[in-house]
Amino acid sequence: MVMKQLYHFQTANHIISGQNSIQSLAENLHLIGKDIQKALIITSPSLIRLGFVDEVKSQLSNKGIDSRTITGILPEPTVANIEEVYKDPANENYDVFIGLGGGSVLDATKILSILKTNDKSVHELLEPDVIERPGIPTILIPSTSGTGSEVTPNAIVTIPDEELKIGIVSKYFLPDLVFIDPVLTLELPAAITAATGMDAFTHSLESFISNKANPISDTYALDSIRLISSSIVEAYHNGASIAARGKMIIGSMYGGMALTSAGTAAVHALAYPLGGKFNITHGVANSMLLPHVMAFNMDAITGRLSRVAEAMGISEAGDSENAAAERVVSQINKWTKELDIPQNLKKYGVEEIDLQDLAEAAAKVTRLLNNNPKTLSVEDIKNIYRKLLP
Amino acid sequence: MVMKQLYHFQTANHIISGQNSIQSLAENLHLIGKDIQKALIITSPSLIRLGFVDEVKSQLSNKGIDSRTITGILPEPTVANIEEVYKDPANENYDVFIGLGGGSVLDATKILSILKTNDKSVHELLEPDVIERPGIPTILIPSTSGTGSEVTPNAIVTIPDEELKIGIVSKYFLPDLVFIDPVLTLELPAAITAATGMDAFTHSLESFISNKANPISDTYALDSIRLISSSIVEAYHNGASIAARGKMIIGSMYGGMALTSAGTAAVHALAYPLGGKFNITHGVANSMLLPHVMAFNMDAITGRLSRVAEAMGISEAGDSENAAAERVVSQINKWTKELDIPQNLKKYGVEEIDLQDLAEAAAKVTRLLNNNPKTLSVEDIKNIYRKLLP
Repeated sequence: MVMKQLYHFQTANHIISGQNSIQSLAENLHLIGKDIQKALIITSPSLIRLGFVDEVKSQLSNKGIDSRTITGILPEPTVANIEEVYKDPANENYDVFIGLGGGSVLDATKILSILKTNDKSVHELLEPDVIERPGIPTILIPSTSGTGSEVTPNAIVTIPDEELKIGIVSKYFLPDLVFIDPVLTLELPAAITAATGMDAFTHSLESFISNKANPISDTYALDSIRLISSSIVEAYHNGASIAARGKMIIGSMYGGMALTSAGTAAVHALAYPLGGKFNITHGVANSMLLPHVMAFNMDAITGRLSRVAEAMGISEAGDSENAAAERVVSQINKWTKELDIPQNLKKYGVEEIDLQDLAEAAAKVTRLLNNNPKTLSVEDIKNIYRKLLP
Repeated sequence: MVMKQLYHFQTANHIISGQNSIQSLAENLHLIGKDIQKALIITSPSLIRLGFVDEVKSQLSNKGIDSRTITGILPEPTVANIEEVYKDPANENYDVFIGLGGGSVLDATKILSILKTNDKSVHELLEPDVIERPGIPTILIPSTSGTGSEVTPNAIVTIPDEELKIGIVSKYFLPDLVFIDPVLTLELPAAITAATGMDAFTHSLESFISNKANPISDTYALDSIRLISSSIVEAYHNGASIAARGKMIIGSMYGGMALTSAGTAAVHALAYPLGGKFNITHGVANSMLLPHVMAFNMDAITGRLSRVAEAMGISEAGDSENAAAERVVSQINKWTKELDIPQNLKKYGVEEIDLQDLAEAAAKVTRLLNNNPKTLSVEDIKNIYRKLLP
């Protein structure tokens, strides 16, 4: 790769990883470098039920730290949902926000933290470059291996009126402290393991073939591909495997690091309208689209895909670049079947008649389409969606 | 790897990489998030002579930013040297310190930044955990591919009275902004390319075999080993190769990232007394010791070394773990010859009679020796030093 462009890399301030690392949360609070007396835990009911929230609360309480818990973040939260949830912390003083959950909870935690210190409504944050100062300190603890949100400067919100999803980007979204603990993901249902896991794989694969790919993003992307490829099927069939879950959660974090630097591409561009117009969750939409977008891209990226094949452990001695690239696409198709990734948009209410609108909406996501190694016309995009209308 | 321990990872706040990335310094100053009116450039005469300092100064001046330049940091700076250099910035107000140079300049920049805001002498900083607040913002720009100091929370100072080197560690040493520009290293003399490059390789290899190695440090260590192995000989013989220099500077940064998380081990422990007592620079001491310490460690780490062999591109189909591990040690020996790494401590004034004192001093560096996969007795250490007294 000729190093002519500039490549940016940033990540979370401090990452603590390891099995049961969440049990060291309170003893590592000093790393935030501020006096902590009161914490707000933003989480979801399933994590309360599994006992992880009590685990955190009792650690905090042993250190004399008061904590409150809120839930209510919807999957792919809307502006109105975040405003509703914000009513609680708006008038209380907290020294830290602890986001414990999937990508939606982590994204919401980032936004809530910023709302506390920037005199802006959620709606106003949708404009570019309006976040002027750091939020209150955040600790992010992912409970899925998917978005990599814990290490990205991004937060996604849904705008139902406009059938849109918008990514807000700010360096102030990068958290102060992250815990990467695979134990939190052991009870994740198989369907969510599959969709979030393929989402993470998509982040890394799209970062690796992005026009903005660079030596640093390549390191994360390839190692993420290596980790996820060697564990996703095991994590799906045998969710209690701590070894598989451990690889998945690091692979997912690396996917976040890769996309922060290299960006995602056409899979994500085509997924956004499916989320905005038909409420298909981000992970599912990405997983559905991945094999078809890669088949479309393949002839432009055979060299890169042959390196992906190697990282996936599926290349064979004597493979041509073409043969290796084809192995990648066929392995993704195999996973789609083995992991029961939905392949039918009709189940979500999409009909042939909707494709024009969907394709036109996707074509507007130029920020991501510009990263794609091949240009996509509206007709190309329709053809890709049509593969999902069997 | 069983994830039972906790593993920490931190790095620089924002990294910009790419050929000629230094030319974008002024336009990226806003990333620091503070108003910058006056900058201090801490550098070395060779970088002034090569025109890089003028390049930075003229960018700053075009933005209306006043800048001053100081030099005078000695290789492996002593407490007294840093105090001397500090006389200039002590009584001036600066909004940012820009360290542009090798590891010693970068380490000194970190310390100077802390001196400005913590009411402490350099000598007082040698005590653990005394740095209480962030320094003034720093930008670090490495001009060698060696220490990885631009991404570590460490700074090394020499204490001649005690014939010691001490590593000061503080999260406040992590810089605000880093530029990774291989163009700065194109004129690096071959001997420095060799010693600093083998130092970077040592960081990654020791991190990979460290008792504190973990999935995150392994990613950096292995990719660093891959990058350096595929470029160090080319960079040594053909310094103007931007491709080789590009791999070396990223490989060196990854070495810093790996060691921040996993620590270094016996090579570094044995190198410190050679620096403290005989003024052998860090890179040279590490490079001299590396093949002998690895030969000593080999039987305990054949599994890990076989993965190193793969990353180095020297493993062959059908290799046993032992055979692959032996390839690593013999490749390091080959490099030692090809890169003209000194292998004779006598040239530096070391005699057989000094070995007991050296070995006893090295045995005290338990912080690093504890990371080593094999325990070393004082006798073992003497035997390793003796290999360098032919």
